[in-house]
Amino acid sequence: MQVEIWSDVVCPWCYIGKRRFEKALADFEHADEVTVRWRSFELDPNAAFLPGRSMAEQLAAKYGRTVEQAGEMLRSMDRMAAAEGLDYDLASTTGGNTFDAHRLLHLAEDHGLGPDMKEALLHTYFVERVAVSDPDVLRRVAAKVGLPAAEVEEVLAGDRYADAVRADEREAHELGCTGVPFAVVDRKFAVPGAQEPDTFLAVLRRAWDQAHPVLETVEGGGPSCDGDSCSI
Amino acid sequence: MQVEIWSDVVCPWCYIGKRRFEKALADFEHADEVTVRWRSFELDPNAAFLPGRSMAEQLAAKYGRTVEQAGEMLRSMDRMAAAEGLDYDLASTTGGNTFDAHRLLHLAEDHGLGPDMKEALLHTYFVERVAVSDPDVLRRVAAKVGLPAAEVEEVLAGDRYADAVRADEREAHELGCTGVPFAVVDRKFAVPGAQEPDTFLAVLRRAWDQAHPVLETVEGGGPSCDGDSCSI
Repeated sequence: MQVEIWSDVVCPWCYIGKRRFEKALADFEHADEVTVRWRSFELDPNAAFLPGRSMAEQLAAKYGRTVEQAGEMLRSMDRMAAAEGLDYDLASTTGGNTFDAHRLLHLAEDHGLGPDMKEALLHTYFVERVAVSDPDVLRRVAAKVGLPAAEVEEVLAGDRYADAVRADEREAHELGCTGVPFAVVDRKFAVPGAQEPDTFLAVLRRAWDQAHPVLETVEGGGPSCDGDSCSI
Repeated sequence: MQVEIWSDVVCPWCYIGKRRFEKALADFEHADEVTVRWRSFELDPNAAFLPGRSMAEQLAAKYGRTVEQAGEMLRSMDRMAAAEGLDYDLASTTGGNTFDAHRLLHLAEDHGLGPDMKEALLHTYFVERVAVSDPDVLRRVAAKVGLPAAEVEEVLAGDRYADAVRADEREAHELGCTGVPFAVVDRKFAVPGAQEPDTFLAVLRRAWDQAHPVLETVEGGGPSCDGDSCSI
């Protein structure tokens, strides 16, 4: 079974949704048959690469609020994250462009390290609160996960995996994904948003049942021969 | 899509069923996506390798009838075959063991010639009315289909593919197949017996629809982030 999850590494609901999905997977009887593939989705492809402003400052500017008011809005999301064991402080988190992070996620995927890289990037951004648009931060995360330094440099210096990121985003669009997280199970079921573990679990079980059909015998049965004779 | 058909090369309904299936396939919109795999099933694994008696004589002995009476029973099946363009004369056909024919079918499968060999063996037995239990007949059919003579000799001299034939038969049993022909489409639908082309066609279309699902979105939709904002 294949679960593909479109998400961005700076998307607060994506990390929360990841924890909920992981809870569902832990309760799933056939978890060892599930492959999880992280697919790219940039919330803001035009974001600056090195933003200086915190999320509270950006939100205040966008909605004409004070930084304190914006911070209060963000704290309600911090509490949702805390319920999943994630130590968010969104008000002091700084955003940024995630294109390079996604290209490195594809490199990690090719090395069988996609899930490790995804977790490391989310942790770096939301818990360590370090900008994952910074190439030095990306180098450090990639090294920690175990990606070959030379390949990381090659990706950061050129446009390797740019097409792969764009292809993921095109496919998201084709599948009707307009926001993230967005999980697709066996290309049969779409789970939009950070749903509760029980919802994910029910979908995993339905997909498993469909992938393991009971042979349906067509009614009627035509004439045949068995060991003794042929029907005439 | 994969269609597996369990059948025996001396099974009158199997050749008729093959023609009906071929008619269905000719009308199927996605015929070029279908792979047909012939699987082994021996009607009588204990049959003698070189029977001297015709089917009419065997049938007469079995049911305590005269050879003429038995021949009349077989002629009704000849007429069913004629309706499919097959020139049967079952009364004068001699049976025999098909184990070696099945082993050679597996060799043919490995050379991508499974369907050619299956058709050639059925034609040899039912239309040419030659015993396919005779090694010399098998050599001639295999050569005509294009199997390498050295490999054919190796199969006939030893027990190569014996396990493959037995495995097919075990699998037939597991799938609930007690008589042949028995077609299985994508391991989802079983079509027992030589059914009409329309029945096969309907099953092919259902299987195709199941293999090309429309993505089903789980109701409700959890919180997510899009380009502008995150739901709180």
